[in-house]
This record gives sequence, C-alpha cells and structure tokens, in this order.
Amino acid sequence: MKINTISKATLGRLPEYLEYLKKSSSEYISSSKIAKDLFLGEVQVRKDLNKVCGSGRPRIGYLTLDLISSIENCLGKEVVNHAIIIGAGKLGKALLNYQGFEEYGIKIDAAFDKDDSKINESINIYPLSKINEYCNKNAIQIGIIAVPTNSAQEVLDVLIENDIKAIWNFAPCKLKYPDDIIFIQENLALSLAHLNNQLNSKLRGKNEIR
Amino acid sequence: MKINTISKATLGRLPEYLEYLKKSSSEYISSSKIAKDLFLGEVQVRKDLNKVCGSGRPRIGYLTLDLISSIENCLGKEVVNHAIIIGAGKLGKALLNYQGFEEYGIKIDAAFDKDDSKINESINIYPLSKINEYCNKNAIQIGIIAVPTNSAQEVLDVLIENDIKAIWNFAPCKLKYPDDIIFIQENLALSLAHLNNQLNSKLRGKNEIR
Repeated sequence: MKINTISKATLGRLPEYLEYLKKSSSEYISSSKIAKDLFLGEVQVRKDLNKVCGSGRPRIGYLTLDLISSIENCLGKEVVNHAIIIGAGKLGKALLNYQGFEEYGIKIDAAFDKDDSKINESINIYPLSKINEYCNKNAIQIGIIAVPTNSAQEVLDVLIENDIKAIWNFAPCKLKYPDDIIFIQENLALSLAHLNNQLNSKLRGKNEIR
Repeated sequence: MKINTISKATLGRLPEYLEYLKKSSSEYISSSKIAKDLFLGEVQVRKDLNKVCGSGRPRIGYLTLDLISSIENCLGKEVVNHAIIIGAGKLGKALLNYQGFEEYGIKIDAAFDKDDSKINESINIYPLSKINEYCNKNAIQIGIIAVPTNSAQEVLDVLIENDIKAIWNFAPCKLKYPDDIIFIQENLALSLAHLNNQLNSKLRGKNEIR
C-alpha cells in the first residue's frame, strides 16, 4: 500500500470508483473499462488507481477485491478519525449535520461553544469549558474551527493544547500554529468568487460583442 | 482591463494585495516590493498582478491607484452580483449569514424553502412558491443550492427557468444543466478528507519508524 498523500481531485473521485467496483461482478477489472463505464478520461483513471493501488497487471488490470480494499484504505474507512467542532453557530451546526464526511473515514463527534444558549448535550453540543475533559476521554484527531475571526486564534491554541494535530479553519483570518500541525484554511467565499468572476467575464464578453 | 477568468488561487490573494495597496502612500509600486512586504514569492505576485493589470513599467512598477482599481474590478466591487439560496436549513442559513462574500462583489439577498416552519420574511427567508415572483422583480444572477440530494435537480431546474446563469451546488450529487450555465460543485467533505488523508499518512509514517 502506498502511503503518499493523495490529491484532493483524486480523493474526490475515489467514492465513485468504489461504488462502481462494488457493483462489479468481474474478478479482474481494467482502468480502461472503469473509465469507459464512468465516462471519465482513461489517463486520469489510470493515474488515480496507480496512486492508490500501484499499476495493474498488463492486459488484465486489477483484482477487483484488491482495488476495493485499497480505495477503502485511502478513504480511511478502516481507520476512522474523530473530529470536534468549535463554534456551534449556524456553520458549526451545519457541519455537525453535514452528510458525507463518514464516507471519507471521518466522524464528527461533538461541537463546543462558549455561549450557554447554544449548548444542547442531547445533540452533542457541549460548553467550551468541557473540551479538555472531552479530549482526555476520547481520542480526537481533528479540530474544526467555526468561530468568528476574533476568537479563532484562541480556539486554535486550545485545540493544540489538547494534542489535536489536524485543523480545518473556517474563520477568514491568518492563524499561527506549530510546524507539525496539518492545517487547512477553508474559504467558502473563494468558490463563490470564482463563479462570480467567470460570470462577469461572460457578461463583459457579451457586452463587447454587441 | 483583462477579461480572462482568474484562478481561484489568485483570486484568494487579491483581497490581501488590495488591503496592502490601500495603506500604501507611494505613487508607484513594484511587485517585488509587495512580495517582500507580504512575505510572498516574487514570481507569484508578478504573475498575479500581470493577470489582473498587465505588466508594470520596468524598474517602476504599477501606478498604485491603477492597481487598486484593477483589483477592485476583478473582485467585482464595481459590479455587485446578486445571489439567492434555495434551502434554508442549517447550511443555507450559515451561507446567508457568512461574512466575506461581499468583499468579492457578491450579495446574497434571500433564501427560499418549501418548509413553512423555516420561512421568516423579516430575515429574508421566503417560501419557495415566491421564487418566480422574486426573480422577476430583482435581478438575480447566482443561485446557490443547499437542499438535500433528492430535491437538488428539481431546484436547479427552477433556477434555470428563472434565467439564473451561475449555480453553486452544495448537494453531493451530479446534476444536469445546459451548456451555457456556469456551474460549481462544492464538496465540503473533500477538504476534510484531504486533511484526513494527510493525517493518516503522517500517523502511518510514525508507526513505520518505530
């Protein structure tokens, strides 16, 4: 099994391959067959599968069951990592309820907030004061920051104190963290801005033609 | 002014350049000075600015005010595009309240839902039955889909009927749309999966060293 990290684009296609392979009744399967059936480029599928499971046997392809198990491994299905969210506002709650994390081997266990009115332990929203106790009792690997900008650094420091090594930050600001932390900055506005920029280019194009 | 579309990565850096330039008191400014002050790579800054404002004058750089106006133009500050959200669940509400879209020239005006219990016109959440009337009265360019998978195609069709040309889809499913639609598929799980994959690689690496 390869342990290189895998690009976001490849990761995004793995669930589709997996669903397809699980329906297949063939013992062996080739990347060109997968590409054809899923309407994807052959080179892309070959590269994706090579990254996940090495190269298939010439003219035969992969043992279907091997490929399924390699993809599941990459998606982290065998090892589930546990995450908590700090900030139980609308975004935090949306993430706590978002379907689709589990198929990537991530379970969001709880959210924490310092605002008492947001606490509801029956749906796993706890007071921020309980975070240390919670992290001591449960193995939490991932922290998700969904608080306003002015509290984000403080929250990140708390996560690091609790030995959390991977952080996903939704607050639109720069944060300081040690080198050994895996950190991803989310910027929802950027996707929308990209859409907007394409739209404006299209509208300007139209005006110029007129 | 260039009308090419600009990459998401470049777009993401523009607000930082803009903030910096607005504080500058120099009449002219070079990409190398900007790179140095913002701790960014010189090649990257030069490429970004070239995409936005063409190349600067050799040894002098850009007229600061020109650069500010070109960046604002790219960010769409001069033309604000209006968006609506379909689906006023937790995600829809989070997007309706998300700070940071306006600096990219996008205003989210309203959300729509077919569930009466979610309607609250005082905070711009309307019944889905009013969407045609709303789109007729207001110039809406962007539709954001934040409904469950099984309603997403139906919602997309309604947006297209209402002459909306740019769509941002949060429902984790494939949708059909005409060729002239600008479409962005958002997959929140993918960022988290990428983080998780890096984390797993790191943990495996540690185990192998032991």
